[in-house]
Amino acid sequence: MQSEFDLINRIRNRVVNHSGADLALGIGDDTAILREQSGRETLITVDLLVEEIDFKLEYAPPRWLGHKVLAVSLSDIAAMGGAPRYSLLTLGIPKLRLQSEDFWEEFFTGYFALAAQEGVTLIGGDISSAPDRLTIDSFVIGHCPAGRAVRRGGARVGDGIYLTGTIGAAATGLKLLLQGLRVHEGEKSLSQSAIRAHLRPEARVGFGKLVGELNLAHAMIDVSDGLGQDLAHICEESDTAAIIDLELLPVAEEVKLVVENQEEAFSLAICGGEDFELLLTAGMDLEDRLMAVAENCGLALTRIGEITKTDKNLNPVIFHHHGNVKPILAGGYDHFSI
Amino acid sequence: MQSEFDLINRIRNRVVNHSGADLALGIGDDTAILREQSGRETLITVDLLVEEIDFKLEYAPPRWLGHKVLAVSLSDIAAMGGAPRYSLLTLGIPKLRLQSEDFWEEFFTGYFALAAQEGVTLIGGDISSAPDRLTIDSFVIGHCPAGRAVRRGGARVGDGIYLTGTIGAAATGLKLLLQGLRVHEGEKSLSQSAIRAHLRPEARVGFGKLVGELNLAHAMIDVSDGLGQDLAHICEESDTAAIIDLELLPVAEEVKLVVENQEEAFSLAICGGEDFELLLTAGMDLEDRLMAVAENCGLALTRIGEITKTDKNLNPVIFHHHGNVKPILAGGYDHFSI
Repeated sequence: MQSEFDLINRIRNRVVNHSGADLALGIGDDTAILREQSGRETLITVDLLVEEIDFKLEYAPPRWLGHKVLAVSLSDIAAMGGAPRYSLLTLGIPKLRLQSEDFWEEFFTGYFALAAQEGVTLIGGDISSAPDRLTIDSFVIGHCPAGRAVRRGGARVGDGIYLTGTIGAAATGLKLLLQGLRVHEGEKSLSQSAIRAHLRPEARVGFGKLVGELNLAHAMIDVSDGLGQDLAHICEESDTAAIIDLELLPVAEEVKLVVENQEEAFSLAICGGEDFELLLTAGMDLEDRLMAVAENCGLALTRIGEITKTDKNLNPVIFHHHGNVKPILAGGYDHFSI
Repeated sequence: MQSEFDLINRIRNRVVNHSGADLALGIGDDTAILREQSGRETLITVDLLVEEIDFKLEYAPPRWLGHKVLAVSLSDIAAMGGAPRYSLLTLGIPKLRLQSEDFWEEFFTGYFALAAQEGVTLIGGDISSAPDRLTIDSFVIGHCPAGRAVRRGGARVGDGIYLTGTIGAAATGLKLLLQGLRVHEGEKSLSQSAIRAHLRPEARVGFGKLVGELNLAHAMIDVSDGLGQDLAHICEESDTAAIIDLELLPVAEEVKLVVENQEEAFSLAICGGEDFELLLTAGMDLEDRLMAVAENCGLALTRIGEITKTDKNLNPVIFHHHGNVKPILAGGYDHFSI
């Protein structure tokens, strides 16, 4: 019978140090130890994922779940323009689930494959029993040169608003899963691509890091709560407003699988969330450089609107469609309201 | 009705920055940002506490739970000889529990009181809904001068083995709670003191930090799994063995409430766990200085044994009683085996 310590040892045996001399001590003592360096900043983020709320084991192949758990935290580091370096993972595991060695083998195959791809070293964590549901807490620690983190609060009036990739596929995937569709890994179809976008999102790590290093953005955030809400966060912290041109919005092709008209498509793309694309604002004089960086990373980048002055009588984020204001219910995802 | 965001705002409003200029950015963006400094190391630890496994709400006043959640992680930083500086907290909260504003008020009163006492700033976290049980993940980040962290693996043959405070009270408290006793905060009794040791442990932050700064120990760990098991961790990582003199062991007075004889008292003290005292090994020539530091911190410190050479035919940790070897079932606490 596998114990808590057996699982810890299995995990520990899979750890590869991608971090070189900065890592003084990884798993195995009371704490991990990281060497600091003047002129550098540490970035820290954490994401909690709870079974039945944030994921369903019925939907996600364990390898994809291991990938997603790390990806959502990598995305936060990318959104600061930082380079991810280390991770910690805590697991609250129901007794029966602890015994599914295949599940953990697959879960960590997904987790460590992404960690290796992005040069991230697992340096610690904790495991406890949990009575009912699997609970996963994912920490990622990154670096950026001092003062160069791209915060939410830096947007300036006149900035272009840019978005990587497309949005709406993840929300479409969730709808399809709720309708009863399931993962078929071999199948190449639009519905499988939507499901994959929801269950195995890609974090825009390389692009985010370059945007930070090259100082190309004034503000950045990852689209996790939904474009409308995440852009509102930028506006609020920057004391600005924003206009989005809906006709410029890169709505994912997958969205058409679950909507009946263009209204619904916009609404799903804007409110859906979990796309983990990067949303940034930048001086339009830097647009060519930004586009070139995105192209080098193999990413589409679209200017979707402009940062404007605040107007107390209006919402911070206004949507235009061919020049006319279009009301969109720009709500986000609040775990407790579902 | 309180939402996830309401609770985050309530927490955010209570945060006090105890960290000065090292903290570039706390709660409110994709990640927190900490300024690094050459010649310094970052220490990172995390502890997962799950309702019904690691704590019962029926037992713990919410203020004490808020205290304990932070204390257990502070204890890990102390055990490295570091100074705790920052914390993160993630909460998986059942819907009904989210609505108990009094509960959270009290919980964070306990949490932030200890944070203020130890100069720790909350810099981030995450909240998700949880279907059934409250899940708490507590991160603490600390500092120490480069190369000065006191690891488990540094014990040397001939070192004295030292223990702060007394052990066994926390395990006694748990037994009393299981027998039906409950917290009466005003009551000054041995049973209440045992219950308090279990539900509201003190981390030896000041002492641990001084031991690290003054370079007084070769190896250190906090007694969380039980003295026997924690000392075995030191021996294993240091490639040494250890002899403990039971007659020197500072068994907590509380233990007598739940044991019938001396055997049981030793067993409870050694295997009980969760005392969060510091266990360290040091050259005996430093004993006077160690004792003086402990006295300055208002702590008892006892030499309980000696580090010895390994012997493949023997357990790494041997217990002597008036010169005779005494077998003790030195098991620890494995969450999944209960």
